[in-house]
Amino acid sequence: MTPGSDALAASRRICELMARLDPAAEGYRLKASMAELYPWPRSITGDGLRRTLDWIGDRLPGFVRREVLTGTAVLDWEIPREWTVRQAWIDGPDGDRVVDFAAHNLHLLGYSVPFQGTLPRAELDEHLHSLPEHPAWIPYRTSYYRESWGFCLPHATRSALPDGQYTVRVDTELAPGALSYGELLLPGNDAREIVFSCHVCHPSLANDNLSSLVVAVALARLLGALPARRWTYRFVFVPGTIGAITWLAEHPDAAHRVAAGLVLANLGHADGFTYQRTEAEDAWIDRVLELRAATASEAYELRPFSPFGYDERQYASPGFRLPVGRLTRTPHGEYPEYHTSADDLSLIRPDRLGRSLAELLEIVEILEGDGVYRNLSPRGEPQLGRRDLYRSIGGGSDGRERELALLWVLNQSDGARSLLDVARRAGIPFRRIREAAEALAAAELLEGVRA
Amino acid sequence: MTPGSDALAASRRICELMARLDPAAEGYRLKASMAELYPWPRSITGDGLRRTLDWIGDRLPGFVRREVLTGTAVLDWEIPREWTVRQAWIDGPDGDRVVDFAAHNLHLLGYSVPFQGTLPRAELDEHLHSLPEHPAWIPYRTSYYRESWGFCLPHATRSALPDGQYTVRVDTELAPGALSYGELLLPGNDAREIVFSCHVCHPSLANDNLSSLVVAVALARLLGALPARRWTYRFVFVPGTIGAITWLAEHPDAAHRVAAGLVLANLGHADGFTYQRTEAEDAWIDRVLELRAATASEAYELRPFSPFGYDERQYASPGFRLPVGRLTRTPHGEYPEYHTSADDLSLIRPDRLGRSLAELLEIVEILEGDGVYRNLSPRGEPQLGRRDLYRSIGGGSDGRERELALLWVLNQSDGARSLLDVARRAGIPFRRIREAAEALAAAELLEGVRA
Amino acid sequence: MTPGSDALAASRRICELMARLDPAAEGYRLKASMAELYPWPRSITGDGLRRTLDWIGDRLPGFVRREVLTGTAVLDWEIPREWTVRQAWIDGPDGDRVVDFAAHNLHLLGYSVPFQGTLPRAELDEHLHSLPEHPAWIPYRTSYYRESWGFCLPHATRSALPDGQYTVRVDTELAPGALSYGELLLPGNDAREIVFSCHVCHPSLANDNLSSLVVAVALARLLGALPARRWTYRFVFVPGTIGAITWLAEHPDAAHRVAAGLVLANLGHADGFTYQRTEAEDAWIDRVLELRAATASEAYELRPFSPFGYDERQYASPGFRLPVGRLTRTPHGEYPEYHTSADDLSLIRPDRLGRSLAELLEIVEILEGDGVYRNLSPRGEPQLGRRDLYRSIGGGSDGRERELALLWVLNQSDGARSLLDVARRAGIPFRRIREAAEALAAAELLEGVRA
Repeated sequence: MTPGSDALAASRRICELMARLDPAAEGYRLKASMAELYPWPRSITGDGLRRTLDWIGDRLPGFVRREVLTGTAVLDWEIPREWTVRQAWIDGPDGDRVVDFAAHNLHLLGYSVPFQGTLPRAELDEHLHSLPEHPAWIPYRTSYYRESWGFCLPHATRSALPDGQYTVRVDTELAPGALSYGELLLPGNDAREIVFSCHVCHPSLANDNLSSLVVAVALARLLGALPARRWTYRFVFVPGTIGAITWLAEHPDAAHRVAAGLVLANLGHADGFTYQRTEAEDAWIDRVLELRAATASEAYELRPFSPFGYDERQYASPGFRLPVGRLTRTPHGEYPEYHTSADDLSLIRPDRLGRSLAELLEIVEILEGDGVYRNLSPRGEPQLGRRDLYRSIGGGSDGRERELALLWVLNQSDGARSLLDVARRAGIPFRRIREAAEALAAAELLEGVRA
Repeated sequence: MTPGSDALAASRRICELMARLDPAAEGYRLKASMAELYPWPRSITGDGLRRTLDWIGDRLPGFVRREVLTGTAVLDWEIPREWTVRQAWIDGPDGDRVVDFAAHNLHLLGYSVPFQGTLPRAELDEHLHSLPEHPAWIPYRTSYYRESWGFCLPHATRSALPDGQYTVRVDTELAPGALSYGELLLPGNDAREIVFSCHVCHPSLANDNLSSLVVAVALARLLGALPARRWTYRFVFVPGTIGAITWLAEHPDAAHRVAAGLVLANLGHADGFTYQRTEAEDAWIDRVLELRAATASEAYELRPFSPFGYDERQYASPGFRLPVGRLTRTPHGEYPEYHTSADDLSLIRPDRLGRSLAELLEIVEILEGDGVYRNLSPRGEPQLGRRDLYRSIGGGSDGRERELALLWVLNQSDGARSLLDVARRAGIPFRRIREAAEALAAAELLEGVRA
Repeated sequence: MTPGSDALAASRRICELMARLDPAAEGYRLKASMAELYPWPRSITGDGLRRTLDWIGDRLPGFVRREVLTGTAVLDWEIPREWTVRQAWIDGPDGDRVVDFAAHNLHLLGYSVPFQGTLPRAELDEHLHSLPEHPAWIPYRTSYYRESWGFCLPHATRSALPDGQYTVRVDTELAPGALSYGELLLPGNDAREIVFSCHVCHPSLANDNLSSLVVAVALARLLGALPARRWTYRFVFVPGTIGAITWLAEHPDAAHRVAAGLVLANLGHADGFTYQRTEAEDAWIDRVLELRAATASEAYELRPFSPFGYDERQYASPGFRLPVGRLTRTPHGEYPEYHTSADDLSLIRPDRLGRSLAELLEIVEILEGDGVYRNLSPRGEPQLGRRDLYRSIGGGSDGRERELALLWVLNQSDGARSLLDVARRAGIPFRRIREAAEALAAAELLEGVRA
């Protein structure tokens, strides 16, 4: 077996997976999973998060949930106390319950400290959060690292609150416990890792980020079921920021193992994809996504790196510089429903969930199949007709692109350029280039130099 | 004589050639030559090709026609049998001759094997080629490497063929012989070569590629008549693909000798120029053509390399990587008449033929004159007025550009940048830059470092 | 004191200067200075120039005027004779004075040789210069290096001159003397120099270049009054071309000392800024101006280097290659009043003068403050909330940009990239980036590597 033949076979396996995938039907199943997870009260610690991780574990053989105790130093941070909510509500002057955590778990400011008391309208107001520009929506607010309590509510409700005394009950607990996160490692022929990371700490928000959670689980199931993988895959499910920092603290050698990675978020709504590059701007994963942007049928926007976003900012810190980009549909803060109660299941389109999964498979197909080859008949073009190569790679309406792929692979395979390089220069989808490499290798016109 | 003075003089010689050239008048002479060559039945072998090469040889002292025997291995290929057509026709059910090679040599599928027989309309149809979207045109089709016979005809004719029995005669011969090609070497002061290559295998097609054949012959005559040339020039006239492969097989050291080259095609019709870059994308010839595109009065399109096209794909193969670009007006396949009987003499505009020749002279002027100089008064600007340099290089409406050229050459001649670099950075035609270098060298303000 | 703390403090000092500057009020003072200087008869030598330099010296402690004797060799040039004008006029056929140097010092061709005589209208005309397209304006013309005399006058006046004999008196003197120029050196902690250079040889022209003269003097006064400067600053006031060449001849080691520089011109009229890059195109000063162009509120155009312009062409000559760009509002030759009597005080807008000075302070703020830092908590983001860093750098409407600046500095400070690099990549004004670096250094999250 020559170098590269493994990679080509591994890539073909992903392609076959994709051929069996019905994105629309799969999308409906994924949205059903989201509906199950949606009401659970998640935060960066606590039982809602733990239950979510266990749900993932039920679906992914080999998944491990880890618990890191309160007070543990993680890089520059410390694991916070664990937060539990028993009840939280406000009763109005006439005794009516005007806000209740039991009705929507966005109503309570995340990590609210316990409080019980009676306040006049004006004093209460300092603890209320609402969105004047979207008077029917509940905002999502947290105060993890500054002790506070508060309630989030529709601005319309807030505006209608009469003067008078309000009874407030925040029956929460902040107590020593643990921060939970989970990961799944799928070993491959090569110990170097491809990492997919999602934040799983948000309570009842759908697109951000249950959408990516269910897509990542589906991807992990598909890859886990394969007979072999070229690379080792690691799926990381963490609470945002502190979870990524904890993961980095517990994986100090990550920079030596991670060959490529993606932070996944907001994969369920209508818009096209946005890819934010790694800090290096032209890492392997950046070049893979450039090719996808150039050849995918869905719209794709490529953006330069920014240190403001999701957990890629932790992975990109100068002490790690992991080659991890970020794939979203519309990024955080750029769709109106972001971090509000309007980011609910109605925003989620099953076909988009399914196509997000398909897109990740396209990316994995490239990662698995990339490699460097050498043309064994490098002087002039080899005679393809004599070897039935035009036929062997099929004809039909895409015959021209297949022939072009053969010519590009022959011309560029000088032992230095990879198939990804060839595909990017040619502007041809990776699949065609990989198929051409397979046909040429079968005809003994191409040999792998390194995979 | 300092380095570079030869080059400047050689470049000036090309400029003087150009001053004596009347593109329109020359274009009429070139079109008359095309008319003579147009009816001859060329293919990748055979007497039509041989006669065409001899026509070239009659006009170019020193031209050599080479014959490579059938069965000779050339790189990955083998020289095919030689093809001779004696007659080829189809008679209809009523005995009328419906297609006849004697009427137009595109009627016969190139390399048709012998056949004689009678077939019903439906069976005959499998051997017919036509263009429904251009019902009056005969397509150009060949089957060099798969044994077959066939006829090409206007779709209107084909559609009107009645049912019935057809008598077919394909009186051809495929027999051991040779493949013919030709070349002319014009020695220069420097043994490194500038190569111009045209395919000459097409039968009655005008723009593709009799246009380039006659332009290349005219260029070779002009360059051959010069008292001296800086570079060695090689003009290559080959049948497409197999001819280029044969030439490469017989010139295995080409990569060491070829400093720059152009494949020439489609130089006779109305559109502007299209230059396709070399595989390296920024070879010397690419930079020369970038300057032309920026400063020429005719429209110019620059395109990245692609391995799909004319013989540049052979020259660019990884075992050779010759720095050879491709200059056309509209490229193959991008004008409607391409590879049909409509690519006839009516498509050819004499002024365009003449201007194509002039453009090649502009390119040669740059190739001959490029070189690296050093400003001998590098600290501050030398005082040009005292040396009458403003005057010595002329005035008039282009005085400002001439002065700018002086300043650019002085500023940039640091012993590392070439005149081509200076011209590209300044966006000034090479001629002005070369004239400035001549004036500055005469004033002992500039010396050649390397030509 | 760590490396870089000096630089941050020096940069903050410029920022504080700017906070105290009222550009509009300062602009009125600057225009008043221009009005004082405007009528003086300057040239590349002579008392008008000398008096202008002394005016500068009166305002800048430490300013030195230098005199270089006629005939001294300066690089490829020679100091010319000194030119003195006593009177110059033309009397018409009826004895009326039709042109008089006493009325406007543009009337006399600069460096006119003495002449006295009577000429007919037609012969006189060969010595007249006017602008048919602007019949009311007097053009500015000189003949420094070719002996000649002439008068410049409105085309309307010229056209109305009747036939007849004209009496001409050019009472000038060209005699051994000296060329005058001046400079001010403001020592800094670092001996490397930032150079600002203006030409000061033009007679009654306002924008070109009294505008830059008064702005440069104001800048020099502000920088001179500082308790400390990081860099050494040199302000150069020279007659155009020959003055810059003389300065270079007398500062042969300039290339070793000059870290950055700007030629200043045309800073008083309405248009936005135009920056012409150094010959290197990406010198430090070029990157500083790129950042300004990206973040300044005034319009900014960046242009590639050209060897045609003001004295930057001398500084950029291959024997020096000083990293000196050119900052103007509209460049020479691109506003209609250029080099005519219409470039007078009415063209000058006080607010633009003031904002030109403010812009130079913005540039100096970057030059003073640039430096390379290292994030001392490079693994993951340090917890900013715990250190009150979000608060310590202020809030309000620009809180988001301040937070982004913190994240960018932390992410990019890997000991190789400078604050200027960070600001350019982030697209954030330098001030924010420097303030973030100060806050992070105070929190012991950042240390200087080199300033």
